[in-house]
Amino acid sequence: MTKISQLETVISRGPVEHQRRAQIMDAANTHFRTYGYAKTTVADLAKAIELSSAYIYKFFDSKQAIGEAVVRQALGEIAHELRQVAGGPKPAATRLGLIYQTVARRGMELCFNDRKIHDLAVTACTERWQPVREYQAALLAIIRGLLVEGRESGEFERKTPIAEVSLAIQQTLELFSQPLFLQQASDDPQERAERVANLVLRSLAP
Amino acid sequence: MTKISQLETVISRGPVEHQRRAQIMDAANTHFRTYGYAKTTVADLAKAIELSSAYIYKFFDSKQAIGEAVVRQALGEIAHELRQVAGGPKPAATRLGLIYQTVARRGMELCFNDRKIHDLAVTACTERWQPVREYQAALLAIIRGLLVEGRESGEFERKTPIAEVSLAIQQTLELFSQPLFLQQASDDPQERAERVANLVLRSLAP
Repeated sequence: MTKISQLETVISRGPVEHQRRAQIMDAANTHFRTYGYAKTTVADLAKAIELSSAYIYKFFDSKQAIGEAVVRQALGEIAHELRQVAGGPKPAATRLGLIYQTVARRGMELCFNDRKIHDLAVTACTERWQPVREYQAALLAIIRGLLVEGRESGEFERKTPIAEVSLAIQQTLELFSQPLFLQQASDDPQERAERVANLVLRSLAP
Repeated sequence: MTKISQLETVISRGPVEHQRRAQIMDAANTHFRTYGYAKTTVADLAKAIELSSAYIYKFFDSKQAIGEAVVRQALGEIAHELRQVAGGPKPAATRLGLIYQTVARRGMELCFNDRKIHDLAVTACTERWQPVREYQAALLAIIRGLLVEGRESGEFERKTPIAEVSLAIQQTLELFSQPLFLQQASDDPQERAERVANLVLRSLAP
């Protein structure tokens, strides 16, 4: 094959490949939500989209790779929403409170509405999959950004090292994002999130 | 049987009954630690102490009842240690910081040293067994007591309703006591506990 025809192949394969991946992920999303991640096999997905398992393995190395792509997409949407909240015009303290509310609401949706996708979330968190670590890094960056703004505007104290405060806040947010926690909690996660957010906000006061 | 001889029976049975329960719990502790809670049967325990399963059922209604007794004992010891920490002579803020350290240390011991007892802890927490709820209530009372002391001594602010602050603090302690969470965390729980404790202490400043 000449270099030009190789290039043409790459170019023409690009969108098709993208489409195929999207098609596999759609099937995966449906299957994980209907039957759960543990009970879905690559063969099930192949059958659903009328392709061979071998063909799917061209796009994803394993079932876990498909699971990771689904998790990355879902967490990417949450991170996007959190960035919008963080980028809003309200005072930094208000926005930080809204971050708690958003994380808690999203966590609840995952736990209680999407009962079946829940097992994928638990697996991803327990095994600390790459997209989970990426999401945690994104969340930490959002928190740090809000702290910087709030310190500049005089809303927040400036004495404590910002890295320490960011990490501590991120940890308290785990209470509302970890599926296993949400599942065990007896009271309303939104209420709990508000209580913890208020505690955190009092600790940020200058 | 006369009333007096009934009474005598009760009196004389008291210590024996207590001994038997202790014997069953010792066997349970050993078995749960060696084989795990899930894999231990009442028949295994009966065999270990050379009694019949029927005899064990005189003392405990079910395997779960034995598990609950073991959990109650373990959590009772932790609560005892926490009460000692809380009752010490140091400033309330220092003692609250020590509560975080103690909870994190105890949680780590449970998770990493007592690997097998861990499955019992997970089951107890996930299913919110009675002794877990009792422990949470005890912990809440300890926190509240420290807050009252710290408010009286002028160490802590007095504006926020004490019930709200107590609950919020208790929630952040869940980060270091929930076995599933400790298992997932990548960094040192003692360090994380210190970070969160410092955040909480800043929020309590008058």
